[in-house]
Amino acid sequence: MLLTVLDLAGIAVFAASGALAGVAARLDLFGVVTVAVLTGLGGGVIRDVLLGLTPPTSLRRWPYLLAPVVVGLLVFAFHTWVTRLRRAIEWADAFGLALFATAGSGAALAAGAPGVTAVVVGLITAIGGGVIRDVLVGEVPQVLRREVYAVPALLGAAVVVVGHDMGLPPVPVAIGAAGLVLAVRIVAMLRGWNAPLPPAPRDRP
Amino acid sequence: MLLTVLDLAGIAVFAASGALAGVAARLDLFGVVTVAVLTGLGGGVIRDVLLGLTPPTSLRRWPYLLAPVVVGLLVFAFHTWVTRLRRAIEWADAFGLALFATAGSGAALAAGAPGVTAVVVGLITAIGGGVIRDVLVGEVPQVLRREVYAVPALLGAAVVVVGHDMGLPPVPVAIGAAGLVLAVRIVAMLRGWNAPLPPAPRDRP
Amino acid sequence: MLLTVLDLAGIAVFAASGALAGVAARLDLFGVVTVAVLTGLGGGVIRDVLLGLTPPTSLRRWPYLLAPVVVGLLVFAFHTWVTRLRRAIEWADAFGLALFATAGSGAALAAGAPGVTAVVVGLITAIGGGVIRDVLVGEVPQVLRREVYAVPALLGAAVVVVGHDMGLPPVPVAIGAAGLVLAVRIVAMLRGWNAPLPPAPRDRP
Repeated sequence: MLLTVLDLAGIAVFAASGALAGVAARLDLFGVVTVAVLTGLGGGVIRDVLLGLTPPTSLRRWPYLLAPVVVGLLVFAFHTWVTRLRRAIEWADAFGLALFATAGSGAALAAGAPGVTAVVVGLITAIGGGVIRDVLVGEVPQVLRREVYAVPALLGAAVVVVGHDMGLPPVPVAIGAAGLVLAVRIVAMLRGWNAPLPPAPRDRP
Repeated sequence: MLLTVLDLAGIAVFAASGALAGVAARLDLFGVVTVAVLTGLGGGVIRDVLLGLTPPTSLRRWPYLLAPVVVGLLVFAFHTWVTRLRRAIEWADAFGLALFATAGSGAALAAGAPGVTAVVVGLITAIGGGVIRDVLVGEVPQVLRREVYAVPALLGAAVVVVGHDMGLPPVPVAIGAAGLVLAVRIVAMLRGWNAPLPPAPRDRP
Repeated sequence: MLLTVLDLAGIAVFAASGALAGVAARLDLFGVVTVAVLTGLGGGVIRDVLLGLTPPTSLRRWPYLLAPVVVGLLVFAFHTWVTRLRRAIEWADAFGLALFATAGSGAALAAGAPGVTAVVVGLITAIGGGVIRDVLVGEVPQVLRREVYAVPALLGAAVVVVGHDMGLPPVPVAIGAAGLVLAVRIVAMLRGWNAPLPPAPRDRP
């Protein structure tokens, strides 16, 4: 029950970032809602397809579809106010990242996947929706370009797998892993950390 | 037999729209044919992967592959004439949309998926190929930007599912659902209906 | 053992082309490594998902993930030198193309897929990573735009399937098919062959 609520909260937050990107790209009503749905559910759908869990969980239950649709409609109607909330959404997005990374790797382990698969699947669950969002609106995915965003998700997924391999109880491990993702992501946001860019070609005489 | 012919007709029409987009993007021969194939088959392949029906049906039979290849070659060779047929292709595309939405949701129900999954899968089957087409040629998917295109597909898929839940015979329901998609799409085309754009920020004094 | 080494070599070469594209698009460290991983593994992951082999092989073993990560890091650090090696990478890429096309169609046959599926899956395995690479950095896929690249892959996959249907021993057939891909691709590179572009509209008086 609590897990479902947290799951829906993560979907809603990612859907809001998708809908905002759709508004910024001047999509129409249906486009904004579609990008919201694909951003909110995309990571989980890819996760389930990679694990062979078909049809994907989030396409089997009404609340999982309704949540991003409603968020998309609200953002469409009130986007000028939501844009002012962008800072709040960034914080909520960090929460979604933490939730999806740990839940994604946990789902992979529960499906019997080996540890390496669970780490990758956790990362893909966390960042997949955002990549879909950016490709749909014609941009190079943000996660590839700036900020420390994927690294905390990777860390969190790895902690879940290590905890599982060490036989630790899954719930405290998941909470600790999610806390780690949140902490690293929020510090990165507050300090404006960016991943390094490629070294420039050296000057020639 | 009739279903296969209708299926191939839908694939051919979508392949033609893909090939025309490829020509417009100045792709080479192989590029035009590839976009034609992916536009024609993409929606069905995603449908089958989401339902766990692998390898996807349309990759298992020669006619399903040959149809979009031949269409791609013909459009490549005669594109100046095909472009003049663009209006006819739009009408045929409405037919493909109707067919794919109803066949997609029907396939999902036949695979034992719940109703909500069948509605989403029907929609994805109908619009997936066009989204792939536009992403490949570097454009924001048309279905997200303009015109009433996805809504009739969604309606048709929903009618198939409601008919199934009410225990109605599937063939008349599918014909009715396809007719509804066609009717809404054609009225939207003739009247130039567009989905609403996001409200502009209000001016400030 | 030899197959694994060849497989890893193909992944490494494709990862290098992905990392170079990421550097050219001014991605950050994580972006360059991610594009390297997705370019190296993408074709094989799509292949396994289409065949229903989940989780995909390349997400189940550490070496398959570490190889493109290490290549991505090296290209990131030394990209000015690697760029000078671009000609060598093109040759190595032809080798990767040969390997992936034949291994992809072989894997499909081994999974019990029909011949038509094996040809398509072989082609997708060979070109899928490059398509993902180009879409992620915001470009129309190179394979659709220029050069004779997909045709040798298609030929190689077809030879594997024909050999299988004729009951020939798989290893010599695979070697011959890979040699054919290599030969056609290298001749195309050396001669600068390009696939034809769409015929221009005729002038009118």
